Amino acid sequence: MTAPFTTLTEFRETLEAMTGPDMGSIAGAKDRNGQLTKPPGALGRLEDLAIWYAGWRDTDRPRITAPQVIVFAGNHGVCAQGVSAFPPEVTEQMVANFEHGGAAINQLAKTFGAKMDVHALDLDMPTQDFTSAPAMSESEVVMALITGWNAVDPDADLLVTGEMGIGNTTSAAAVAAAVLGGTAEDWTGRGTGVDDDGLARKTDVVARGLALHDTSDPLEALRCLGGRELAAMAGAIAAARHYRIPVILDGFICCAAAATLEMAVEGALDHAVAGHLSAEGAHEQMLERLGKQPILSLGLRLGEGTGGALAIGVLKAAVACHSDMATFAEAGIAAG
Amino acid sequence: MTAPFTTLTEFRETLEAMTGPDMGSIAGAKDRNGQLTKPPGALGRLEDLAIWYAGWRDTDRPRITAPQVIVFAGNHGVCAQGVSAFPPEVTEQMVANFEHGGAAINQLAKTFGAKMDVHALDLDMPTQDFTSAPAMSESEVVMALITGWNAVDPDADLLVTGEMGIGNTTSAAAVAAAVLGGTAEDWTGRGTGVDDDGLARKTDVVARGLALHDTSDPLEALRCLGGRELAAMAGAIAAARHYRIPVILDGFICCAAAATLEMAVEGALDHAVAGHLSAEGAHEQMLERLGKQPILSLGLRLGEGTGGALAIGVLKAAVACHSDMATFAEAGIAAG
Repeated sequence: MTAPFTTLTEFRETLEAMTGPDMGSIAGAKDRNGQLTKPPGALGRLEDLAIWYAGWRDTDRPRITAPQVIVFAGNHGVCAQGVSAFPPEVTEQMVANFEHGGAAINQLAKTFGAKMDVHALDLDMPTQDFTSAPAMSESEVVMALITGWNAVDPDADLLVTGEMGIGNTTSAAAVAAAVLGGTAEDWTGRGTGVDDDGLARKTDVVARGLALHDTSDPLEALRCLGGRELAAMAGAIAAARHYRIPVILDGFICCAAAATLEMAVEGALDHAVAGHLSAEGAHEQMLERLGKQPILSLGLRLGEGTGGALAIGVLKAAVACHSDMATFAEAGIAAG
Repeated sequence: MTAPFTTLTEFRETLEAMTGPDMGSIAGAKDRNGQLTKPPGALGRLEDLAIWYAGWRDTDRPRITAPQVIVFAGNHGVCAQGVSAFPPEVTEQMVANFEHGGAAINQLAKTFGAKMDVHALDLDMPTQDFTSAPAMSESEVVMALITGWNAVDPDADLLVTGEMGIGNTTSAAAVAAAVLGGTAEDWTGRGTGVDDDGLARKTDVVARGLALHDTSDPLEALRCLGGRELAAMAGAIAAARHYRIPVILDGFICCAAAATLEMAVEGALDHAVAGHLSAEGAHEQMLERLGKQPILSLGLRLGEGTGGALAIGVLKAAVACHSDMATFAEAGIAAG
């Protein structure tokens, strides 16, 4: 469970060395899918999800019995710029809420039978305000990546990464603009609910961050504009690939963190699906850029991993149908 | 558990006598929703679903612990017209598959902790071919409504009705055209997968059925063009209203059956939400006509209640968040 990197360069090499899905399992799963007691294609996207999942689990008949949800929390120096409707103390208060089982993500993890872990990353040491300095040093961002990597249970069979961090839609917007291109306006949204003045302030903050830092390298963008919880999510998503654990991405912030991996090494998110389309404005274009079609679209904009966790139910259902339905031959049914 | 009607007229009177949601519980649930540890509206549609559910369960803090899925099966005389890609024997073979636990709906019910019941309605006695006679006599349609009514467990707290019946997308298209208006072309689709010739044949069959029968009364449309499994679903949905059990509607065929209730008595489906948008072409306009926004849209077109059952997970998640999250006061969090 020890992360195999100690620098950003080594982290990139780790990403580059990762393997793809098992094509034999995919072929086997497609073959099985065609024999199940239903008209061809009648389970729609559930069929695609089950086949995709099979490829990463190296079996044509997988099962989901041990999903893991990990919530990472971090504090952001950029909060000094007045970018959030909530005070930064709320990050720590919400961590306590997660630990006591009182947050939305706790109920969702419980509903779908997922283990939930919470990692608070140096909450008493916010990142630097990225309008005046890089958010993190290299050792800080690597430590956060390692925390994320080591948080993944190698025995999990599905991973959702979530986050909590007052100010982190600002950080995510800056990271997104840096790694996916476009302007501060393109990526900055209302987060937990800032008003028009707040939105203008956030957009200006993002623009200033983009102007200050050289972020042509996606992992440098994560370091200079991101936050510890974003880096930890990136580390966890990378570890999941290493352990062949499929990932369900959450909303805007999770996807911004994930995008740094995909932009650093193409295909680094092939083991991940988009759990939902968030109500945070720029999430739709982010998913389009990542080539991910959301499983759900229910207007959530909470973070914590809630949209990803909600999709665990759909993925469990897809895999249960795939692996446990009878074939036409088993059921003695005329196949049409 | 005995159905309180013995004629179509009495069934209509039963629908007319039904009560609405409890406004006090709705107000209480809205109040609670505003206090939960999340920004206002951040759980999107989950919040609306929980509040809606609360109104029908007469409590501002409901729980879902006993969902029921009922699959009704029937055979259709109109199959003689060559409207399906599958032979009619498949209806009975699939009933055996349901009973042995091998169908998609079995896996979904299991995944989401729902009890599943199967009712085969006189499979050895198909309805009449509606291009030459009414599909059912009054006593036959009433018997099917009663079977559906009596199949509902009064102690269930959520109901999904599903169906199996070779030929029943043809029947459902005819019912939909009769009760919602429009032409045979508007409502006839490919069902389990007929080709262009099959689609033309189905459309012609629906048009001939519409021309033959006086279906100005929605319940008469159900009798003349429907099938036993459609009538049973209508009876079950009505019984759920009686027992204050919220309903998740499945796809095209379930919604066609449900539409007869809404068109007979406005508001008869207020206790029902649409589980999903089916890939069966006309389902989208049907949901629009019923004023129902689908919870999921994953390209399913299988029936059996699969789309409804898949949405059980979302509804459970919504209610779990609503009833089990901490309030700001309980968690000691600054509410912004």
